[in-house]
Amino acid sequence: MLGRTDTDSGMIADPLAPVASTPPAAAPPLALRYRAVRAGMAALARGLSGEDLAVQSMPDASPGKWHLAHTSWFFEVMVLEPHAGLAPLRPDWLYLFNSYYDALGERHPRPQRGLLTRPSLEQVLAYRAEVDVRMLEFLATDPATPAQALVELGLQHEQQHQELFVTDLKHLLSHNPLAPAWRVAPARTTAGANPPLRWIAHGPAGPVAIGAEGPDFAFDNERPRHSVWLEPFALASRPVTCGDWLAFIEAAGYRDPTLWLADGWDAVQAGGWQAPLYWRRGDAGWQRYSVHGPVAIDPAEPVAHVSYYEADAYARWAGARLPTEAEWEAVACGRVFAGAFADDGRLEPAPVTVECFGGNVWEWTSSAYSPYPGFRALTGAAGEYNGKFMSGQMVLRGGSCASPRDHVRSSYRNFFPPAARWQYSGLRLAKDQA
Amino acid sequence: MLGRTDTDSGMIADPLAPVASTPPAAAPPLALRYRAVRAGMAALARGLSGEDLAVQSMPDASPGKWHLAHTSWFFEVMVLEPHAGLAPLRPDWLYLFNSYYDALGERHPRPQRGLLTRPSLEQVLAYRAEVDVRMLEFLATDPATPAQALVELGLQHEQQHQELFVTDLKHLLSHNPLAPAWRVAPARTTAGANPPLRWIAHGPAGPVAIGAEGPDFAFDNERPRHSVWLEPFALASRPVTCGDWLAFIEAAGYRDPTLWLADGWDAVQAGGWQAPLYWRRGDAGWQRYSVHGPVAIDPAEPVAHVSYYEADAYARWAGARLPTEAEWEAVACGRVFAGAFADDGRLEPAPVTVECFGGNVWEWTSSAYSPYPGFRALTGAAGEYNGKFMSGQMVLRGGSCASPRDHVRSSYRNFFPPAARWQYSGLRLAKDQA
Amino acid sequence: MLGRTDTDSGMIADPLAPVASTPPAAAPPLALRYRAVRAGMAALARGLSGEDLAVQSMPDASPGKWHLAHTSWFFEVMVLEPHAGLAPLRPDWLYLFNSYYDALGERHPRPQRGLLTRPSLEQVLAYRAEVDVRMLEFLATDPATPAQALVELGLQHEQQHQELFVTDLKHLLSHNPLAPAWRVAPARTTAGANPPLRWIAHGPAGPVAIGAEGPDFAFDNERPRHSVWLEPFALASRPVTCGDWLAFIEAAGYRDPTLWLADGWDAVQAGGWQAPLYWRRGDAGWQRYSVHGPVAIDPAEPVAHVSYYEADAYARWAGARLPTEAEWEAVACGRVFAGAFADDGRLEPAPVTVECFGGNVWEWTSSAYSPYPGFRALTGAAGEYNGKFMSGQMVLRGGSCASPRDHVRSSYRNFFPPAARWQYSGLRLAKDQA
Amino acid sequence: MLGRTDTDSGMIADPLAPVASTPPAAAPPLALRYRAVRAGMAALARGLSGEDLAVQSMPDASPGKWHLAHTSWFFEVMVLEPHAGLAPLRPDWLYLFNSYYDALGERHPRPQRGLLTRPSLEQVLAYRAEVDVRMLEFLATDPATPAQALVELGLQHEQQHQELFVTDLKHLLSHNPLAPAWRVAPARTTAGANPPLRWIAHGPAGPVAIGAEGPDFAFDNERPRHSVWLEPFALASRPVTCGDWLAFIEAAGYRDPTLWLADGWDAVQAGGWQAPLYWRRGDAGWQRYSVHGPVAIDPAEPVAHVSYYEADAYARWAGARLPTEAEWEAVACGRVFAGAFADDGRLEPAPVTVECFGGNVWEWTSSAYSPYPGFRALTGAAGEYNGKFMSGQMVLRGGSCASPRDHVRSSYRNFFPPAARWQYSGLRLAKDQA
Repeated sequence: MLGRTDTDSGMIADPLAPVASTPPAAAPPLALRYRAVRAGMAALARGLSGEDLAVQSMPDASPGKWHLAHTSWFFEVMVLEPHAGLAPLRPDWLYLFNSYYDALGERHPRPQRGLLTRPSLEQVLAYRAEVDVRMLEFLATDPATPAQALVELGLQHEQQHQELFVTDLKHLLSHNPLAPAWRVAPARTTAGANPPLRWIAHGPAGPVAIGAEGPDFAFDNERPRHSVWLEPFALASRPVTCGDWLAFIEAAGYRDPTLWLADGWDAVQAGGWQAPLYWRRGDAGWQRYSVHGPVAIDPAEPVAHVSYYEADAYARWAGARLPTEAEWEAVACGRVFAGAFADDGRLEPAPVTVECFGGNVWEWTSSAYSPYPGFRALTGAAGEYNGKFMSGQMVLRGGSCASPRDHVRSSYRNFFPPAARWQYSGLRLAKDQA
Repeated sequence: MLGRTDTDSGMIADPLAPVASTPPAAAPPLALRYRAVRAGMAALARGLSGEDLAVQSMPDASPGKWHLAHTSWFFEVMVLEPHAGLAPLRPDWLYLFNSYYDALGERHPRPQRGLLTRPSLEQVLAYRAEVDVRMLEFLATDPATPAQALVELGLQHEQQHQELFVTDLKHLLSHNPLAPAWRVAPARTTAGANPPLRWIAHGPAGPVAIGAEGPDFAFDNERPRHSVWLEPFALASRPVTCGDWLAFIEAAGYRDPTLWLADGWDAVQAGGWQAPLYWRRGDAGWQRYSVHGPVAIDPAEPVAHVSYYEADAYARWAGARLPTEAEWEAVACGRVFAGAFADDGRLEPAPVTVECFGGNVWEWTSSAYSPYPGFRALTGAAGEYNGKFMSGQMVLRGGSCASPRDHVRSSYRNFFPPAARWQYSGLRLAKDQA
Repeated sequence: MLGRTDTDSGMIADPLAPVASTPPAAAPPLALRYRAVRAGMAALARGLSGEDLAVQSMPDASPGKWHLAHTSWFFEVMVLEPHAGLAPLRPDWLYLFNSYYDALGERHPRPQRGLLTRPSLEQVLAYRAEVDVRMLEFLATDPATPAQALVELGLQHEQQHQELFVTDLKHLLSHNPLAPAWRVAPARTTAGANPPLRWIAHGPAGPVAIGAEGPDFAFDNERPRHSVWLEPFALASRPVTCGDWLAFIEAAGYRDPTLWLADGWDAVQAGGWQAPLYWRRGDAGWQRYSVHGPVAIDPAEPVAHVSYYEADAYARWAGARLPTEAEWEAVACGRVFAGAFADDGRLEPAPVTVECFGGNVWEWTSSAYSPYPGFRALTGAAGEYNGKFMSGQMVLRGGSCASPRDHVRSSYRNFFPPAARWQYSGLRLAKDQA
Repeated sequence: MLGRTDTDSGMIADPLAPVASTPPAAAPPLALRYRAVRAGMAALARGLSGEDLAVQSMPDASPGKWHLAHTSWFFEVMVLEPHAGLAPLRPDWLYLFNSYYDALGERHPRPQRGLLTRPSLEQVLAYRAEVDVRMLEFLATDPATPAQALVELGLQHEQQHQELFVTDLKHLLSHNPLAPAWRVAPARTTAGANPPLRWIAHGPAGPVAIGAEGPDFAFDNERPRHSVWLEPFALASRPVTCGDWLAFIEAAGYRDPTLWLADGWDAVQAGGWQAPLYWRRGDAGWQRYSVHGPVAIDPAEPVAHVSYYEADAYARWAGARLPTEAEWEAVACGRVFAGAFADDGRLEPAPVTVECFGGNVWEWTSSAYSPYPGFRALTGAAGEYNGKFMSGQMVLRGGSCASPRDHVRSSYRNFFPPAARWQYSGLRLAKDQA
């Protein structure tokens, strides 16, 4: 294993450590939060080699090194340059680490992110450290509210990429015939039975307010809060489990076209899908590739790495349906999010032992990702953050085992194309009420 | 030109003519309707050669001959076999002319429909005639309500394919460097100015009922009637015109990525889009290919053959947005549909001279094609008709110059993928009201 | 079936019939030959519909109508315009029917030849007739030698396209699930055993002259006659038969990578090859699709529709090798070509009952298609005829059941890419001699 | 930059250093040669990071780490296992590092070699060291002749991969917008004029012997020595230079289809070729990407990184042609190879200051890569080394600036597909003599 950092020489110091070692007397809360959030991805990178973090396994995924750099670029172009008047540290890198902001100039083609063996991981980590120094100096100046809002946006952005860092790396390593583990497996919890599935009823028919309001951070796509008319329905008290999914496989769910959306059936055929992504049937039964290497399927865990098409087909097979995002939010709002989050360090779903919402797996809804009534994108380059992806994607709710716990909330709208499987995506059933 | 019919020999008679020549004293209304609807596609095919009707220009389109056969197959497998107990006339054709009904067996791959030079056009027309004879005999038996409902479904299906017959053929002939006209051009109406655009306000906020109810025919996807909460908004009194679109082109709308959805901008780049489909800029200004051959752009006509992505970008450029399908229906409901329909024989949009809804062009809405709350697909094979396409497509409303006038209604939901351009698809603007 | 010609009306007369009905007193031989050759493709087209002749089954193949038109275009642009001073009959068709002559202007994209439903088959046949009238008038003027050479080139070109007309149509109809026959099957000859395979020895080592010389027609790629040094070898007295090939299949030849060239093995995997093109294993044993519809495999027939890769793998399996083109020509030169030719009307290989060279199937050689030492392409546009294809293709020798008998000769070099299977391509074994 | 070796800890020692430090009293020549050859790739890898050596830029190229491992795998499976009876050091790696030997089991898909971030570069270097220890121990046993022949084959194989290591890495880094240099640029030699081009005549017509014979190493594809009949011809005294090529570009050579083979013109269009690979026209004139970073074009250097198609088109434009491989060998045989080789450390072509053959750039010939008369592949797995690639490729002769000097000879046959450009491939003109 490559030792990527050499604290003795001081050359490639942990970007956040020195700062943390001299806690300011009265650090403004945003600076504390900045340090904490930025430490997350660096912690994930620890123990991984430059090779692991340089390679791109598919156009949809990005190398870990790219995530480390891009999130730093974001602070440079969104905060340090416009609000602190600081010229970019590495002008020739701007082109490399812009993701999709047309307003911010040309950019390196996404499918070629994995060809960037230079700058090296060390250089990128050093860049991160330099950006952190600048950001913390800037935050010490007590910046104006608009700048603070962009810092917060940058931290939320960092948290999103922290999750992608995990899922993209898992996808890459899953292609290695050696099936490497890259996280220490947690102590095996006693496999308990799931609590019995209960239907949480909601009614009678009428308008329900959903979406974010107030001063707390929320993405532009969560706003404005608005009314949606809901008919009576019920939502399952827990997500669909691996045990449930095994029954679907046994019942030939992957071979019956009448269960599937037309596009879904095409995807099944084209991709040869017979189980969720990362599942393999071996001599000892079904296994799945995990960040801890191959593990046996635990029936009590929520199923993950299924596409929207699979979620939809499962629901039809089960005589139910997926909830709309409004239904999901109407029930989840106010509940404690009790599943596994990235903070737990497990980075894989945990067995469902209590009725819970949030964490473990993102839950596909039947709602296409569209603007809320009255939606207004942020101004400036940040306006490209969410709005321009409002076609061809479906909304997921709740957060996953790779999401930072303080990043998600009941109004949070995640979105992915219906064929995507490399996220920790699962489902929860809904049904109409008479 | 091939003489495809030879009435002298009687061998390949117009399938509907002999029936029509002996009008029954008291024909049941459904039989009359059957004759009228089935005559539509046959009328369109007149004057076209076997070659014109055999070729497939892209996987999304089908040859005219295939439409003629498939719509007859539909009556055989949905009505004659299950409800009249009649074995299929040509069992070896069932495989050829099934479109997508998994419950009805294997089928010929869609992209290979254009390889079916056999059966010949004459054989297919004869098959149509034989099916018509059987169907009219069956209708004379006063069938039970469920069977009558399937006949009506078959006629609605026929009308949909009549429109596809037009758009698919137009697409094919547009690829011919000779740019052939296949319809006689209508007398040029005096190009009048459009009426001034007016905003039709709707409010205040509250629930509105949309969708179909009652005994009249409606597709399963239009049901059930249900409430939707609408905020105050306004809808334009006319669709966007070619004149409007020329201004968008002149303003470099096709070259400014900030106007476009991310997927839309990808489509612009990949397809080299610089104008609507069929538009060409020549020495004498912009022209478009039409069923009457190349014609000059008439600024007063509604723009057609634009994708959802283009419609969305235009709306953003115009400082407005697309309406949701509920908004569209809330305003359109009860209004006379006054644009051009297939019945007019023009088969191209007509200049907009009055405030109108319906006809001319299908209007893209911002609503993804999803099930209505409480949606139930039809039972049996007909259940595959609509429901399984509820992903990846956007809803269009209103009907076009290629739609039979009695086929559309304010609750009608057409749907196509957002990149589709070969339909008569245009748009109407909406905006939020304070 | 469409009656494509109407001799009563005189409108769409057989293009060659009227000419033939008034035989000139002393027709120059070239005119007689012109009539005879041009009648060949028209005869093949008889009984086929406009649909059959309009559709293109793959980019490598062309519609029959296109062959009919392109071969006429060739006489217009190569002979009538430059040598008779005649402007093209249909200037707007020049673009449509140019195949690949860059010197003659832009051209319709090859993969879109099947979209040309206009001009119609009738129009193309009328065009052929008009070109024939002009050509025969021109030939009556006793044109100069260079012009006569181009006429002869045009006739050889016509004969090549006559063969492609057959193979392209067979390929198209093979995709029809109805497996139509389009030629009347010949009376079944008594299936006799093949004569025993004999090895025809050639030696000792030394130079051998190959290639064409003298005044008789030969393509530029057959010239100049030149020396090739040959080591002692032996050539099989007959081509490999279907019976031989069945043994190869039974011996798992299609599943053993060590028999195959690397590119060949890739083709086997990508294409799922398990037998020659058009072979299907049914309940009643192996069948193949033929121009007479599906027929049982006759072990005594030469195998056809194999790629170079398959031919090479078979030879390796058989402990032999493919001959070079020089070896083939050295042995074949001077022998009577005794296999089936297009003139026999069978259009499928005939059982091998005598030792023979030529006809039945083109035989793959191990020689890449390259210029002979001293090769000079023809001048003018005709220079693009052969030379520019001298990369990526392999030489085949001998002529097939779809070749006109007077078109081939022992120096004739046919060429196709190594993966091509839709020609009547087979093989003959060779081996080194001590 | 990552320090990949840590000699202090001794953990990842230079694989060849410890052996070299204890020179055996009377080392067998093969062991000495083994050490020298194996040191070559390791030397190239020095100064490159694990990231640089893990990434794959296209399916045709491989990561540097893969080359390091695969060449070691070769000695394990070809020598140590069968001849020394040693079980593989890492059985689970056999699958990863097999290139294309079907006889040696399943293998990792070539396009996914760049996904192997594990084993790490350190692990692969350690594996190399372990194989070296075993090999040197084995060589110390004075193995039998067949085993020695396989060792020599492995060293020749190593040298081929050493060249690919250079060209694959250059290709990867050329995609980096930072255009990194990875070798120190040599002192700029005074740019002298090329010596005048002279034509070296060969004649009269008659047989010439080419190919390898005798005990010295040669690949199976160079044997047996045999006669080829050559007509009189002349060969240029130097390769085509960058100055020559600039004239071709200026003369619109890349825009004139009549100069090109049909496949070549397709490649020009599809690839947007306007100059050799790595050339860019900037404000300061033409530059090319090199292993020393971007450099100005030196007209005196041989042109490199051109495809066969470009070489062929250039020759046609110049009124000449490419030589056959026999012509090339007939003239080159016996001459000193005087161009730049890998040993010089430059790794880019050097200006042509003397008449020379060999080195600098591989020279495309007009000969397709085919078996020589009487060719016999090696027995066993080594038989897959050359023979199975004998289709679809063209022969190149002479060696390049990335070839080890003692690896090439006048009978050496290199081969690549005609569209390949990432090798150091250039050309030399030939012409017929009266």
